[in-house]
Amino acid sequence: MILGVIGAGQLARMMIPPAIQLGIDIRVLAEGEGMSAQLAQAAVGDYRDTETVLEFARTVDAVTFDHEHVPQHVLRALVGAGHAVHPGPDALLYAQDKRAMRERMRELGVPQPAYALIDSADDLQRFLDDNGGTAIVKTARGGYDGKGVRRVQRVDEVADWIAVAVSGEGPELLAEELVDFSRELSQQLARSTRGEMAHWPLVETVQRDSVCAEVYAPAPGGERFEREAAEIAQRIAEGVGVTGALAVEMFETSDGRLLVNELAMRPHNSGHWTIEGAVTSQFEQHVRAVLGLPLGDPAMVRDAAVMVNVLGGPASGRMEDRYDDALGEYPDAHIHSYAKATRPGRKVGHVTVIGDEHEATAARARHAAGVFGD
Amino acid sequence: MILGVIGAGQLARMMIPPAIQLGIDIRVLAEGEGMSAQLAQAAVGDYRDTETVLEFARTVDAVTFDHEHVPQHVLRALVGAGHAVHPGPDALLYAQDKRAMRERMRELGVPQPAYALIDSADDLQRFLDDNGGTAIVKTARGGYDGKGVRRVQRVDEVADWIAVAVSGEGPELLAEELVDFSRELSQQLARSTRGEMAHWPLVETVQRDSVCAEVYAPAPGGERFEREAAEIAQRIAEGVGVTGALAVEMFETSDGRLLVNELAMRPHNSGHWTIEGAVTSQFEQHVRAVLGLPLGDPAMVRDAAVMVNVLGGPASGRMEDRYDDALGEYPDAHIHSYAKATRPGRKVGHVTVIGDEHEATAARARHAAGVFGD
Repeated sequence: MILGVIGAGQLARMMIPPAIQLGIDIRVLAEGEGMSAQLAQAAVGDYRDTETVLEFARTVDAVTFDHEHVPQHVLRALVGAGHAVHPGPDALLYAQDKRAMRERMRELGVPQPAYALIDSADDLQRFLDDNGGTAIVKTARGGYDGKGVRRVQRVDEVADWIAVAVSGEGPELLAEELVDFSRELSQQLARSTRGEMAHWPLVETVQRDSVCAEVYAPAPGGERFEREAAEIAQRIAEGVGVTGALAVEMFETSDGRLLVNELAMRPHNSGHWTIEGAVTSQFEQHVRAVLGLPLGDPAMVRDAAVMVNVLGGPASGRMEDRYDDALGEYPDAHIHSYAKATRPGRKVGHVTVIGDEHEATAARARHAAGVFGD
Repeated sequence: MILGVIGAGQLARMMIPPAIQLGIDIRVLAEGEGMSAQLAQAAVGDYRDTETVLEFARTVDAVTFDHEHVPQHVLRALVGAGHAVHPGPDALLYAQDKRAMRERMRELGVPQPAYALIDSADDLQRFLDDNGGTAIVKTARGGYDGKGVRRVQRVDEVADWIAVAVSGEGPELLAEELVDFSRELSQQLARSTRGEMAHWPLVETVQRDSVCAEVYAPAPGGERFEREAAEIAQRIAEGVGVTGALAVEMFETSDGRLLVNELAMRPHNSGHWTIEGAVTSQFEQHVRAVLGLPLGDPAMVRDAAVMVNVLGGPASGRMEDRYDDALGEYPDAHIHSYAKATRPGRKVGHVTVIGDEHEATAARARHAAGVFGD
């Protein structure tokens, strides 16, 4: 069995160990030399080029993804040529296009912020008037980690985006209400090509500067949302036909409701804790799901797991240069390096600690990750 | 940092995931095409050829091993050329040569069976006379999994071996007393190039036809040997200068003593359970130890772990052909395939289950592994 992964970042990299464990060969299509996952057998090429991707697909039994950027026409060419593509283009659309996502969530009856498709300045003014004078304006495509998102109170704050959108030559826009939320949560599950589903516990994610910084599993006090969050994720997974891992990022509002924020259809930063903290990690589960294998047990191994991202890394070199301190002082910390060049704010690794309760576990994970900061 | 591994079997294969996690590059020197660990960057060549091994060593920062068969003259050429070799030849000798091992254990005061070096038929007759008429005769080199071992009551039962040994053209011999033991135990530790040591809990190993079949961690009722077993392993590790993983296989005698049976200086089958059952696996610890990194926490993640080998595998195909049953019925079992061709008795994979107590855990591991039998 050969699994093909388009993209060779850290998500592809972290699929390699479970593939090794299960005796499954893995091949990646990397965008260039020196990518994170290139210790797997790698081809190099442009994932936007249909011929390149078709050629890659012919060497593997199933195609999956490190990211959600492969264009729909390329995905559809793969499916048209008879290749197994998971998640498929019909599902992946909702992780690629926020307008399509919001419309589909509405059809599925999933709780989400008030929103409007914005095709003109008038549309946005109307939305501002109807929603207390503030809107979160987003480009439907291409945004991530806070990019492609602006909080505005006047139309002219996104005049540039509106001009491009109206011209039809740039990404389309949508507006969402400013949600009064107390924290962010993430519900992950996997759905296999056979329709089997398994979900991990609901987790709390802490963002800094719109980038995931820490994850607490399970979400403290999350019991009251446990069933609802899982049902939302299952409704989405079945409703859009996800195959593989699905992360549903949600707001917990100040008045105690869940609202869906974003979707990811791949292993997700909010699930890195599962590598050590769950019986079956999100990476193993994704591999099983896209290959049509039975899913593993998503139960936690211990009562608590905390993951802290290493953002930026040492300005002066690689994470490995600080292993003496990090590994020496925190022998129970699981240190993950993506073997990437350090750069301010870049996700270059993460640290997970598992234990009996969150406080001590979080402190150790945070301190161990802090060794790599500046 | 690049770690070089000589040999590309399942032990090298299982070093790849922790190397990936820590951002360490790994290169293997495989004996031929299609080996278990060749998804790491691989060179192909003969590990008995000094030039081949030297050339490989020049491409890595430290050299370690999948097996103990690299000849001493090759190891010494590596060290002579300034390469970091862990474990080094002075230590590895005692995993290669059972005569040297027994003599060194005696010097170190380690409890072991009565033994004698056998250089003639007379030597063996004398040993038989002194030890109740039965001896375990072993070739000093090249034996494994029951090969190179015979239980004899008469000299003529090993006449062929003695003839070769006397001629000086075959392996030397030793004789050991037949130990009246109730079970076999294994104490593993790692010792880093800086001399730091960390040991896992003592485990019980169950052999079938002289091949490791099952491992129970921790050894049931092993508390009374806990300190002694760790001290024995530490004395050996320091006494012979082990760097990397050390497994000390021991007998628990019927009258309640520990006697050292064999040594392995690499990750060992008795420690496969540590991948999921310990905070730091033997493979990660070995990688850390040979690269001079601080060691990780060897504590168990849960109270019990059971590992069952998949010996032989399905006569009709690969382990993967039975994943529907094995993964489907045992979602909490960690199924490991070495991506090897099946063959009667061959170790082609293993299954680990972790839990709160041994009985249910063992039953699940055994049943899951049983799916791959015939």
